[in-house]
Amino acid sequence: MYPHTVSLPVREAKPRGRGLTMVIDPGLPDAYFADIVESYGDLIDFVKFGWATCLVTPHIAEKTRVLRRNGIEFYFGGTLFEKFLVSDRIGEWARLCHRAGARTVEISNGAIALSNDEKARHIRRFAGEFEIVSEVGFKDPERSERLPPNRWIEFIEQDLDAGARLVIAEARESGRSGICRPNGDLRIGLIEEIAESGIDTNRIMFEAPTKELQVHLLHRLGPQANLGNIHADSVIGLETLRLGLRADTLTDFTRLDRELPTHA
Amino acid sequence: MYPHTVSLPVREAKPRGRGLTMVIDPGLPDAYFADIVESYGDLIDFVKFGWATCLVTPHIAEKTRVLRRNGIEFYFGGTLFEKFLVSDRIGEWARLCHRAGARTVEISNGAIALSNDEKARHIRRFAGEFEIVSEVGFKDPERSERLPPNRWIEFIEQDLDAGARLVIAEARESGRSGICRPNGDLRIGLIEEIAESGIDTNRIMFEAPTKELQVHLLHRLGPQANLGNIHADSVIGLETLRLGLRADTLTDFTRLDRELPTHA
Amino acid sequence: MYPHTVSLPVREAKPRGRGLTMVIDPGLPDAYFADIVESYGDLIDFVKFGWATCLVTPHIAEKTRVLRRNGIEFYFGGTLFEKFLVSDRIGEWARLCHRAGARTVEISNGAIALSNDEKARHIRRFAGEFEIVSEVGFKDPERSERLPPNRWIEFIEQDLDAGARLVIAEARESGRSGICRPNGDLRIGLIEEIAESGIDTNRIMFEAPTKELQVHLLHRLGPQANLGNIHADSVIGLETLRLGLRADTLTDFTRLDRELPTHA
Repeated sequence: MYPHTVSLPVREAKPRGRGLTMVIDPGLPDAYFADIVESYGDLIDFVKFGWATCLVTPHIAEKTRVLRRNGIEFYFGGTLFEKFLVSDRIGEWARLCHRAGARTVEISNGAIALSNDEKARHIRRFAGEFEIVSEVGFKDPERSERLPPNRWIEFIEQDLDAGARLVIAEARESGRSGICRPNGDLRIGLIEEIAESGIDTNRIMFEAPTKELQVHLLHRLGPQANLGNIHADSVIGLETLRLGLRADTLTDFTRLDRELPTHA
Repeated sequence: MYPHTVSLPVREAKPRGRGLTMVIDPGLPDAYFADIVESYGDLIDFVKFGWATCLVTPHIAEKTRVLRRNGIEFYFGGTLFEKFLVSDRIGEWARLCHRAGARTVEISNGAIALSNDEKARHIRRFAGEFEIVSEVGFKDPERSERLPPNRWIEFIEQDLDAGARLVIAEARESGRSGICRPNGDLRIGLIEEIAESGIDTNRIMFEAPTKELQVHLLHRLGPQANLGNIHADSVIGLETLRLGLRADTLTDFTRLDRELPTHA
Repeated sequence: MYPHTVSLPVREAKPRGRGLTMVIDPGLPDAYFADIVESYGDLIDFVKFGWATCLVTPHIAEKTRVLRRNGIEFYFGGTLFEKFLVSDRIGEWARLCHRAGARTVEISNGAIALSNDEKARHIRRFAGEFEIVSEVGFKDPERSERLPPNRWIEFIEQDLDAGARLVIAEARESGRSGICRPNGDLRIGLIEEIAESGIDTNRIMFEAPTKELQVHLLHRLGPQANLGNIHADSVIGLETLRLGLRADTLTDFTRLDRELPTHA
């Protein structure tokens, strides 16, 4: 970082109430993981250990320690919850999260047949014990496509009412389900309806693993949008998008056309 | 890893006879490479140094040492064999592999015009000296597409008869040739014919560099399928797919519909 | 690297006049960045710190130090120049580059409405102070598509006349703009016209972030083409392409058909 006088959007310091960045760890090697945290941990609010990777990651406790030391909150992916739920081991899931030192947990129904009413019941049950991040949207692209905007909004509100601190709008690691179509396109109408629903968007985190998704959401919701499933090597890239330091968000082109001589 | 009582498929310990994972090194930097091996080396059976990268990798001997220390077998890509073959230096190729401490070598005809009969002759020649991994399928997508399933099966059998320990079914690093179509789709009919050919699939390793390929092959062949060209950062991800710890293989959806209350 | 007698194209030692490789740093973590430089720094001529990442990278000075120690030239992306220009802070931009120890700067108009005449004026102004890398092509794919080959050639010549050491032909980090179409296809006709324009192609660096682009440009311009926006994990891969050690450039297939027995 170099000091300069160019005018940029102001970012809140951690712990932030908005402009949150959640990085997904899909199983990064240990030293590389620590490297990311030590290189630019101030830009990261949450690390999600993707799906149930924590059950096969040999040195997971080292990873959680490096996060604690650097003031980054972590939680395990909703698939861990779902796996224990369908195995009828939900109490064991909560004990595992406590033992791992997790203060936050994700409760979701992305891969299993669990109604939102049932999901909300689990949110309510664990809301006193943990900070709850819940998720709306399904892993299966066709199942997600059949979920209309008014149901998304209803489910988000239901989760917040049940005590979720944040609600994740699903896009998977690939950006090909949930708020995205199977071909990777964003469901723009869905984003519009959510943005205009009256729900406080500071309580929603949009999964946005690709630059295209990040750009659209920042254009629509502003530089303080909460964005998740960010790949570890894109943290600096996302921060430059937030601050208008990359071509895609650099400036309003129309305004420039008036200000600069154009002969091109 | 956290202890738990959720029921998962049992994985054999190394050295394994099935459920093999082969990671491709396309030229990773040294410390990162060591980091992968030390973070989750028990999940890796083979590292292939892709194509002829070993000829331009400055510290290749450090990489092979870290593999030996961690009980991971390595070999150089088939393109190294092919380059030396077309340069009329095949004896020098064998000496280079010995000097590098390779106990396994790959013999292939993916990029050159070499008949399978000729390839099998080379397998037979070197089978006493090295463990042989051979490869069927071509790098050129159109040439591969013209190879019908019965020829694939014939070539796989010929290679095994000649003394290959394992036969690789080609997909390249990109998943866009060999068992895949140029657009990345898996040749499902080809996989079916191979699976039903009577060949012991524990002797075949399918290149599966994308999650989509991994999921299809695990669904079709079971969690103990041998999968290769796995990217270094996907080792944990693949292991979770094998164990049913990721959405794509989490569970049988129909069964869940019966077990859980559904109002969605 | 292993000694061998296979005949390969000869590569010049650094500092090279052609066959240049420019790696883009889109915000890599610190230790990983150093790892790349120490693992294969002799293969890297330039590192570009992408767009204006230098303004949000906490330990940017450590990165520039490790480059200096390893004889690698660096510069900040053209978007940094453009951001300061539209903020009317161009003098501050130059001071920032000097303070950072940059001997090379990039001057571009990829994201803002600045004519090539104006860009050339800036090149001329700073050519005494810095080595100038300029860029032709726009970030916006549609704006780039509307720029015909004769204008590309005119702009490249104008930049060289104004004092640029090298002119970059834009493709972005994604390979989806500039010399590429929005779908990622290379504008082959454009490359042909540039190659036959009489401009010294040793003075042009083509952005080629994907293997497909690298292969096409090496086939067309030879192993000594200057290629940029190379991802850090593809440096070894590119070097093998240059040397004919990967399937895509291994050999001339027709020639092989004559030399080797073919029964396939």
